[in-house]
Amino acid sequence: MHEKYGFDRETAVTARPGEPSVYDADLHEGWRIGMGVNGGLLLALAGRALAEELGGDGQGHRDPFSISAYYLSTSLPGPVTARTETLRRGRTVSTGMVSLVQDGEERLRAIATYGDLDGHDHAGDVRTSATPPQMPPPEQCVGTEAAPPEFLKSSPMLERIELRLDPDTVGWAVGAPSGRGIVQGWLRMPDGREPDPLMLLLAVDSLPPVSIDLGIPGWAPTLELTAHVRARPEPGWLRLKHSTRNFADGYMEEDAEVWDSAGRLVAQSRQLARVRLPQGAA
Amino acid sequence: MHEKYGFDRETAVTARPGEPSVYDADLHEGWRIGMGVNGGLLLALAGRALAEELGGDGQGHRDPFSISAYYLSTSLPGPVTARTETLRRGRTVSTGMVSLVQDGEERLRAIATYGDLDGHDHAGDVRTSATPPQMPPPEQCVGTEAAPPEFLKSSPMLERIELRLDPDTVGWAVGAPSGRGIVQGWLRMPDGREPDPLMLLLAVDSLPPVSIDLGIPGWAPTLELTAHVRARPEPGWLRLKHSTRNFADGYMEEDAEVWDSAGRLVAQSRQLARVRLPQGAA
Repeated sequence: MHEKYGFDRETAVTARPGEPSVYDADLHEGWRIGMGVNGGLLLALAGRALAEELGGDGQGHRDPFSISAYYLSTSLPGPVTARTETLRRGRTVSTGMVSLVQDGEERLRAIATYGDLDGHDHAGDVRTSATPPQMPPPEQCVGTEAAPPEFLKSSPMLERIELRLDPDTVGWAVGAPSGRGIVQGWLRMPDGREPDPLMLLLAVDSLPPVSIDLGIPGWAPTLELTAHVRARPEPGWLRLKHSTRNFADGYMEEDAEVWDSAGRLVAQSRQLARVRLPQGAA
Repeated sequence: MHEKYGFDRETAVTARPGEPSVYDADLHEGWRIGMGVNGGLLLALAGRALAEELGGDGQGHRDPFSISAYYLSTSLPGPVTARTETLRRGRTVSTGMVSLVQDGEERLRAIATYGDLDGHDHAGDVRTSATPPQMPPPEQCVGTEAAPPEFLKSSPMLERIELRLDPDTVGWAVGAPSGRGIVQGWLRMPDGREPDPLMLLLAVDSLPPVSIDLGIPGWAPTLELTAHVRARPEPGWLRLKHSTRNFADGYMEEDAEVWDSAGRLVAQSRQLARVRLPQGAA
């Protein structure tokens, strides 16, 4: 593995000789956030295995259009096996499944449809009515270096990405969450690695859980996350927005939007997450 | 099969003797819309097979919390086999997979997490900020009897449900689509069958494709649809809202909200659909 950038090295998959559709990989300690490995990193790694499985036949179905992942148990740093299966091979898109297994325990199961983002029949017909999140430029936003040292120590992932949060959505850091259910910010890779469809799979799950802006600190484990990649991103900073509109009974939907430097909505995702409410809050 | 209501009879699954986790069913001609069987009906049928697989052990995980379905080929009226598999059995939720196969061809593959909607740890803590769609009462809305007779003939499903569309979102029926990308209306079963979590899986895909409100008539085949069921619905009319914010390059995301008669957001879904633009429109 001689990839130039950390993200590519640390999501690399190696075809297992003699076992078609099986790939070996290694979950790097550097992507840990709290106890487990970040869910977006897992999605990117699973997505890379599927790009090999579905795009390896020369038809060019190497870009995730839609991927739906169910998180079954906490992923830990160390070896992981990706087993893939082609469900349908089509002219414009192909669909496959992937399972990540660690120490005999399944971590993640996903289904995904892949195609070629440059091969759209109606390329250029864009009637998107969503508008990009408004926030100050990156240099006026809040970097993760402002986080408490003990938090940084337990979440090495924060050194793997460059995240700059909109000051308007970090009130929770000083005990004043806005209550709106919105967290937004800028993302890029510190080593200059430019965004591509696989990096968007990481991006959709790289902000803090939006429940933090509702005044509920702590981890919000993902049950399910579906991401749609809608266009190949242009180089430069990505703008991310996390929001929730339906927080109820200890669960929330969390929507993510990823906008590229050209102002294009390049990825959307929604997840269902469990929220651990403080004792006595219910 | 002696179920009282059509929806239950026509999504019924029968365990195949001697083959655990395999269920036989029949796709009824009455749920055809155009050439194929409605995607929401398929989701409800797949969801019923998973309720048997995941909820049959007495732990009570019979309600879909999240289900993600990939549509692989057009489903036709006739026999269909559902093959299910348990991926993880947990204390509060269990996750499984289901495949619908017809004549040896896979129609749909889905992963889903099930639990007990009455068993939430934080039941009653509802901080939903979404607001229900505003529309006139059902009797002031537009029924499907207003549709052209040839359309009704090719889509018998419209007689299986009672759909009343908000007049503000049916401009497309008289050649004047609003261009906002919104279609909303009321839904109930004509035979008095009250809503439950499985019926919500039908509801999320029972309105016309929202592209029709952008002035693009015709079918919008679903690649992927994920539904979250967030609460057990109260009896009465359901309010549905379909909308899209990202229509680009011949694909669109379509979001559905389902609100119950008590004003609760009981289900949310998002799908990625392909839109066939008229020749020369791109």
